[in-house]
Amino acid sequence: MSSRTSHTVLVFLDPDYVNGRLADPEKPQLMATDLGATRGDGVFESMLAVAGHTRKIQAHLDRLARSAQALDLEIPGQDDWRRAVQTGVAAFRSDNPAPSPELDEAVVKLIVTRGVEGAAAPTCWVQVSPVAAAGRRQRETGIDVILLDRGYDSDAAERAPWLLLGAKTLSYAVNMAALRHAHKQGADDVIFTSSDGRVLEGPTSTVLLANVEKNDGGATVKRLVTPQLDSGILPGTSQGALFAAAKAAGWELGYGPLKPQDLVDADAVWLISSIRLLAPVNHIDGREIGTPALRKQLTAELNELFAGIE
Amino acid sequence: MSSRTSHTVLVFLDPDYVNGRLADPEKPQLMATDLGATRGDGVFESMLAVAGHTRKIQAHLDRLARSAQALDLEIPGQDDWRRAVQTGVAAFRSDNPAPSPELDEAVVKLIVTRGVEGAAAPTCWVQVSPVAAAGRRQRETGIDVILLDRGYDSDAAERAPWLLLGAKTLSYAVNMAALRHAHKQGADDVIFTSSDGRVLEGPTSTVLLANVEKNDGGATVKRLVTPQLDSGILPGTSQGALFAAAKAAGWELGYGPLKPQDLVDADAVWLISSIRLLAPVNHIDGREIGTPALRKQLTAELNELFAGIE
Repeated sequence: MSSRTSHTVLVFLDPDYVNGRLADPEKPQLMATDLGATRGDGVFESMLAVAGHTRKIQAHLDRLARSAQALDLEIPGQDDWRRAVQTGVAAFRSDNPAPSPELDEAVVKLIVTRGVEGAAAPTCWVQVSPVAAAGRRQRETGIDVILLDRGYDSDAAERAPWLLLGAKTLSYAVNMAALRHAHKQGADDVIFTSSDGRVLEGPTSTVLLANVEKNDGGATVKRLVTPQLDSGILPGTSQGALFAAAKAAGWELGYGPLKPQDLVDADAVWLISSIRLLAPVNHIDGREIGTPALRKQLTAELNELFAGIE
Repeated sequence: MSSRTSHTVLVFLDPDYVNGRLADPEKPQLMATDLGATRGDGVFESMLAVAGHTRKIQAHLDRLARSAQALDLEIPGQDDWRRAVQTGVAAFRSDNPAPSPELDEAVVKLIVTRGVEGAAAPTCWVQVSPVAAAGRRQRETGIDVILLDRGYDSDAAERAPWLLLGAKTLSYAVNMAALRHAHKQGADDVIFTSSDGRVLEGPTSTVLLANVEKNDGGATVKRLVTPQLDSGILPGTSQGALFAAAKAAGWELGYGPLKPQDLVDADAVWLISSIRLLAPVNHIDGREIGTPALRKQLTAELNELFAGIE
């Protein structure tokens, strides 16, 4: 058993336990016939808990509900999830005292599977585990990214809802294969493009770019841009929260369509997600994005805005 | 627990057990952190055991190995799988004596997950369970099918191997969503089409069509056709075996590209798979395929050929 597993806390949502049922993470807890395991048939969310506070939990619970609806899964109410999260985060912090305040972080996953065939209700649990050191490092060092074709055109989501393109399902084999493909090429991560050449998203993140320009009056205008949602990408809870904070701080906001050239021409590009947060992109397919100094400055500015998010 | 689960036999591949390790199917056997459950990260096969003999096992083991390779999974050798299958099928038949020889059937699934994060080896098991009555019935009654867009164009598989289009992965959420979509419309099953209008496959089956014509000499020519493999579909083990048998019996064989109109114009269409076998298609999007008499005759003929397959 890896040391990571031994730190994990599991809390199953169970009508008999109002605050959730703590389960031994060292022991098997899932039926081998669970459709989550045999069909990838379920949905999930990943959140970051900082000093015991689970960030953006409302946005994640709302997205979980939308994902579940796309898969015709009836899941427990948000209060049940909140209590189970609280149970899990408290147990994790008690089991794993943080060595320093800035390391008092944990990954909180909400997982729903359809359960075993014919089950009356889905299998639902909360998993709380340590933040991987690699992700934490990449917030600082930045990442190298390759572009990979996601195979779908940017109209597929609208015309074919059974493709579940806006849902965060457990069927992530393609996302994982794309990441392995990138790692084999010496890259850290992937930005997917549509078959008609639009920028979509990362396998586990949302794409952001920034452009800094002088307007006609000579004032500096900073613009933050992300691909438009109707291209079949997952609505990013971190992107949403950061956009709101950036707008309040005077940034202009924009929504794609974006082409790969827009990324290459940007002053900075990030992959943003709930656990790794803002990962500045140093290179895309070997081409440097912006300059190290500007990347660093803009990243610091957005990190400060993002740190203020609940 | 459903009665289906209570009939199931589980055999885990385990270096400490040369013939596999029987595990209690009534108890949880999987870690909640297994990447099969949390990422749909793994591969599988489904086979039919008839009177204790697992049909086409070599073709399934070969395809499992190819799927595993596409996902960079190192799996146990074929002899290990064969012994575990034998253990599982024997235990299933002993636990569930068939009420009649024609009901002496079982579904044998081979399942591989990447295991928990950082695991040295994948989690591998064999699941033996009863054949669903619905599938058995549809062999006789036939099925109504709708066409659904799979979102990918027919070149995606070749240009983007990270899409895993030729691998049988555990990430089947889209396949399951497409089936639910069909059921809501009163249909039984789905035939996927590519975004460029080619016939692909069913969510859990291969598409076949037959045309019966007179040649110039006045002799009857029967032709069996399936979509070409390079369009990103799963190579069907049942289709492959039936094609070999049909060729030996004097049928002509053909390989796509096929358009939806080719299905509608055919004398018969089937979805073929290892468990349900040949399911004759009565209607596609509400349009009847061929005539009941010809469908019945051709289905009987192919069923006889298929019954002879090891």
